[in-house]
Amino acid sequence: MTFEQWTRLVLDRVETALEHYLPAADAVPAPLHDAMRYAVLGGGKRVRPLLCHAAGELTGAQPGALDAAACALEMIHVYSLVHDDMPCMDDDALRRGKPTVHVQYDEPTALLVGDALQSQAFITLTSDVLDVARQAKLVRELALASGSVGMAGGQAIDLASVGHALSREQLETMHRMKTGALLRASVRMGALAGTVADAHALESLDRYAAAVGLAFQVVDDILDVTTDSATLGKTAGKDAKDGKPTYVSIIGLDASRALAQQLRADAHAALEPFGALAQRLAELADLVVNRVS
Amino acid sequence: MTFEQWTRLVLDRVETALEHYLPAADAVPAPLHDAMRYAVLGGGKRVRPLLCHAAGELTGAQPGALDAAACALEMIHVYSLVHDDMPCMDDDALRRGKPTVHVQYDEPTALLVGDALQSQAFITLTSDVLDVARQAKLVRELALASGSVGMAGGQAIDLASVGHALSREQLETMHRMKTGALLRASVRMGALAGTVADAHALESLDRYAAAVGLAFQVVDDILDVTTDSATLGKTAGKDAKDGKPTYVSIIGLDASRALAQQLRADAHAALEPFGALAQRLAELADLVVNRVS
Repeated sequence: MTFEQWTRLVLDRVETALEHYLPAADAVPAPLHDAMRYAVLGGGKRVRPLLCHAAGELTGAQPGALDAAACALEMIHVYSLVHDDMPCMDDDALRRGKPTVHVQYDEPTALLVGDALQSQAFITLTSDVLDVARQAKLVRELALASGSVGMAGGQAIDLASVGHALSREQLETMHRMKTGALLRASVRMGALAGTVADAHALESLDRYAAAVGLAFQVVDDILDVTTDSATLGKTAGKDAKDGKPTYVSIIGLDASRALAQQLRADAHAALEPFGALAQRLAELADLVVNRVS
Repeated sequence: MTFEQWTRLVLDRVETALEHYLPAADAVPAPLHDAMRYAVLGGGKRVRPLLCHAAGELTGAQPGALDAAACALEMIHVYSLVHDDMPCMDDDALRRGKPTVHVQYDEPTALLVGDALQSQAFITLTSDVLDVARQAKLVRELALASGSVGMAGGQAIDLASVGHALSREQLETMHRMKTGALLRASVRMGALAGTVADAHALESLDRYAAAVGLAFQVVDDILDVTTDSATLGKTAGKDAKDGKPTYVSIIGLDASRALAQQLRADAHAALEPFGALAQRLAELADLVVNRVS
């Protein structure tokens, strides 16, 4: 199977699973459920679900278990986008090529969509496609990656950094929390949905995920200045306009491109112990670095 | 032990546990953690923790397990208050006798405090004071009670109802979701942290919790028109001003008072199978109905 065929297969699975794990559009309260589905379905690169599935294939996880983990990850990711786009945060009107939730609906709906999607992620993780030990373990992974020492904490540091000069180390800490924690959780949760050989294997996967997570952000910063809004599906040039520190603003465009390639090499190196079994993870590192949107 | 002594004991335990289960104020990012602790600590009636502990005593749950469940419930409750108070929702400046989080800090902080407290609840529930089977079960109870078919869904119906005439049935549906679901989860999670005798016992506790949950809201509606802001610790008279349907506006003050007493009797009746073991739950039903703030 080529990487493209594999990707298509996983994306189809995940879309079907998201349909299943989201509340039906006509269930009470229908307007909220409609907005939750609008936010989640039919868009996005689904990087986290792909990482989760690829890591789980490495550890022999059941595809159904990986679907649940992948959906929970995507729900957390989408909730963070919906809240980040709100007027009191980044105030953005375009996301995944569509009007953002508070534009399409209204602000209270956007707030509640985000809140309810976070709950839905934990409902999804406690489905009986996972045994209770794995349910408990994955809930803890996801909650730690989402909360104040993970994604939400990184967002708080990001907001506090607007208009301030950050060092490269401070920028890295912020991104390790804001986007890195959930990308790392994607790999860890996929792996833990199966049977991880030993602590050493999990550590290698962690190193891979850290490199891919940081590369993802470096490439995001590059694309923000080199690509138009139509291609990105979100507003381009926004970071510079908002006075947000980025890799491009701190180390420049060329050094950022070199850094992305270095991180890709780091990611590949971390996968060496797994040999050919880690092919999809290696290909995903390439995808993250070479993407154009 | 008198009810007052028992209450004081549980409240002290829960306050200590909240201190423990919240991130330290100096952990990175300190400003977010400071705001999370401001929102949660040193205030509130802690009705959900009390219900959780009382139900758990009935089923022989370990006090440490009940502390974790009680803290998770209170974190979810507080996150909902912080988000509900935001300008795009109820726009309230006073809560638990203190400035609300978006007033004391700012709007982005309030949004992230709520988001991170929801994650923190699930981190807390997956502590090793609970075995993994109970962790998984309680996570699912709490997530369902918090999400779109529970608290967040009730909040969506509440917002959509402003300025509309609701029937008493519609009002009840809204409250069953908005506040009832989490109060019911408080009783269920406390019970499930121990060993519930059989499905019949859980059903009786459910009936008790449904009555107490609705009584709580009826009394809230009564207090909103009969009590001043200083006593309530939040803005009084707000529902009428905002054009929100309440029990008082739909069935009148006297009928609301009679309904609260009826629900108290229903709650007591549901506890009959448990005899003296359910003393604390019975006393809590009285507390909910007879409270003055």
